[in-house]
Amino acid sequence: MKFDLTATDLHSKARAGVITTDHGQIHTPIFMPVGTVATVKGVFHRDLKDEIKAEIILGNTYHLYLRPGLDVLKAAGGLHKFSAWDRPILTDSGGYQVFSLAENRKLTNEGCTFRSHIDGSKHMFTPENVMDIQRVIGADIIMAFDECPPGTATYEYAKKSLDLTQGWLGRCIKRFDETEGLYGYSQTLFPIVQGCVYPDLRRKAAEHAAALDREGYAIGGLAVGEPAEKMYEMIEVVNEILPSTKPRYLMGVGTPVNILEGISRGVDMFDCVMPTRNGRNGMLFTSEGIINIRNLKWRDDFSPIDPNGSAFVDTTYTKAYLRHLFISDEMLGAQIASMHNLAFYLWLVRESRAHILAGDFAQWKEMMVPKLSVRL
Amino acid sequence: MKFDLTATDLHSKARAGVITTDHGQIHTPIFMPVGTVATVKGVFHRDLKDEIKAEIILGNTYHLYLRPGLDVLKAAGGLHKFSAWDRPILTDSGGYQVFSLAENRKLTNEGCTFRSHIDGSKHMFTPENVMDIQRVIGADIIMAFDECPPGTATYEYAKKSLDLTQGWLGRCIKRFDETEGLYGYSQTLFPIVQGCVYPDLRRKAAEHAAALDREGYAIGGLAVGEPAEKMYEMIEVVNEILPSTKPRYLMGVGTPVNILEGISRGVDMFDCVMPTRNGRNGMLFTSEGIINIRNLKWRDDFSPIDPNGSAFVDTTYTKAYLRHLFISDEMLGAQIASMHNLAFYLWLVRESRAHILAGDFAQWKEMMVPKLSVRL
Repeated sequence: MKFDLTATDLHSKARAGVITTDHGQIHTPIFMPVGTVATVKGVFHRDLKDEIKAEIILGNTYHLYLRPGLDVLKAAGGLHKFSAWDRPILTDSGGYQVFSLAENRKLTNEGCTFRSHIDGSKHMFTPENVMDIQRVIGADIIMAFDECPPGTATYEYAKKSLDLTQGWLGRCIKRFDETEGLYGYSQTLFPIVQGCVYPDLRRKAAEHAAALDREGYAIGGLAVGEPAEKMYEMIEVVNEILPSTKPRYLMGVGTPVNILEGISRGVDMFDCVMPTRNGRNGMLFTSEGIINIRNLKWRDDFSPIDPNGSAFVDTTYTKAYLRHLFISDEMLGAQIASMHNLAFYLWLVRESRAHILAGDFAQWKEMMVPKLSVRL
Repeated sequence: MKFDLTATDLHSKARAGVITTDHGQIHTPIFMPVGTVATVKGVFHRDLKDEIKAEIILGNTYHLYLRPGLDVLKAAGGLHKFSAWDRPILTDSGGYQVFSLAENRKLTNEGCTFRSHIDGSKHMFTPENVMDIQRVIGADIIMAFDECPPGTATYEYAKKSLDLTQGWLGRCIKRFDETEGLYGYSQTLFPIVQGCVYPDLRRKAAEHAAALDREGYAIGGLAVGEPAEKMYEMIEVVNEILPSTKPRYLMGVGTPVNILEGISRGVDMFDCVMPTRNGRNGMLFTSEGIINIRNLKWRDDFSPIDPNGSAFVDTTYTKAYLRHLFISDEMLGAQIASMHNLAFYLWLVRESRAHILAGDFAQWKEMMVPKLSVRL
């Protein structure tokens, strides 16, 4: 993997760059649609490319390990071939899911035992086997195995957890560097910077990660219950330390506003289930604000879903039609809303990049932020 | 509406023709995907055109009347504009749904009162208001309001029911001919031939309908519980009488084999929920037979879903991937299976038409029928 920093905004920390992987280039800042179980829910891969213009998507190690399972993924030749997606993929390490989804967790220095949320079967994740699993899945960018404490964790807990995560990180790197990709293309491992909402822990974590000199870094453990201002503060603390020559990935974030605030603080990569999950519930993000499409006011509004939208659904279908689909519990509603929201998120980062290159990102961002939260 | 009979098979009753409507041409024999509530479940209209190659789709009067409601449909300018579909549409009369879905039905000569299956609200359908409703919906081809008795109805019941349906048909035609389309294009009304499984009633119904000299005819009340052989026999009885110069629409039928048997008996138009409903349950129809994609045998079968399939999903995705989606309850599974099945049904009627034109339909049909029912 290679990262070229193309431009840095003069009035903020925003950056534009290009990540080059064996599956193609990613123009940063970028948003990555979440494909939990080898599918971005409700969206054909064709439309991820042509309508949403996704340059990289996410997979979840925990979910993929349980279903379809490593034997199937290996026999398929990895996740790209299995799911018919030939652009870059990033996988998380499964840490977050083990701590949020799995049952009967038991955490030790060795790793974490847990029971599957699907069938109760018992499993263990260790830093070493999570590297091996991600070798089998075959994502271009893979994540270190970490503990992700809640946003409300005490300082003591957060400190202890960070020690564990940093110990695990060393073992991840050792295993990763001793092994090779299985499918003829290269993979890269991002450390994850933890430390909850405590600036000194975040600083310590960022310094530890930076010193390891990897090809990119993730910032984890944010947007997990802490106030947005705390999150922004932690991003600032961490990005002050992470090398400017490497891409920075803010995990699991967030709303359109969160993304612009992250970009302006020097974040290059984002992922979040919000565009698809909220889309399935009838919430649309647009450049003019947020729409709850179930509201009665859209019943006979025959204007396009989003006249500024770039996906074909935005101008093909009307708000009244989309509302009808949601009120009638028709799956096409979720399909349209998911495509719209993802295309909007990708538009938002493309537009951010264009403004960074044009030198007016900071002003544009100030103009956009209030609009993005308006309830239409 | 205009119907041109292009060719008739020498070794069967199969016919090839062209129906011309104000929304474009339909090449018969044709299969019409069912868009119950203004959406073919799980399928974008773009894909109905480009991938499935649908030339006409169905809407359900009962469902559309309840949701989105006539005021919305009228304000939208009709169902075509409301749902962004500019090719022909056919609507059923709501008769079938009133008798299968609605509650507290009360049937009189005047019409039928019922309660909505959605909110229990009370409504009445009469031959007259069902014409008015279908004027508002604005389908190119609309259906007479009829009673659809079960496949197990006694002769006495069937006879009485047919009298009612024939009385209603006269009232439908009167109202239809007194009114005009609301949106600047023409609509046509098909009578429905009922009579259950009783040849003399079917003959009587067909003669009555034929004498009315409408632009096309529907055969209703089949595939409602009677044996397939009975259905084929009734089609033969009715098509012996219906004028050969008018299209014949067999309502709600059926499996791929049913469709080939119908075509060989002179049917021109079909509709059925089977490709989408069975698709959502993981059943795929292919030219080599039927696949239950949930079966363990597909777990690591990385061959294309259907190497002969004409939709992009057929060759983009593998059986193993599609199985994984169904096992993981992912909506993309239903989307892929629905698109595949509909594209297969449309391929089947296109291929039938090509063989009718080539003069070898009967042989081709004999070769296909046993293959279509094989469980793969």
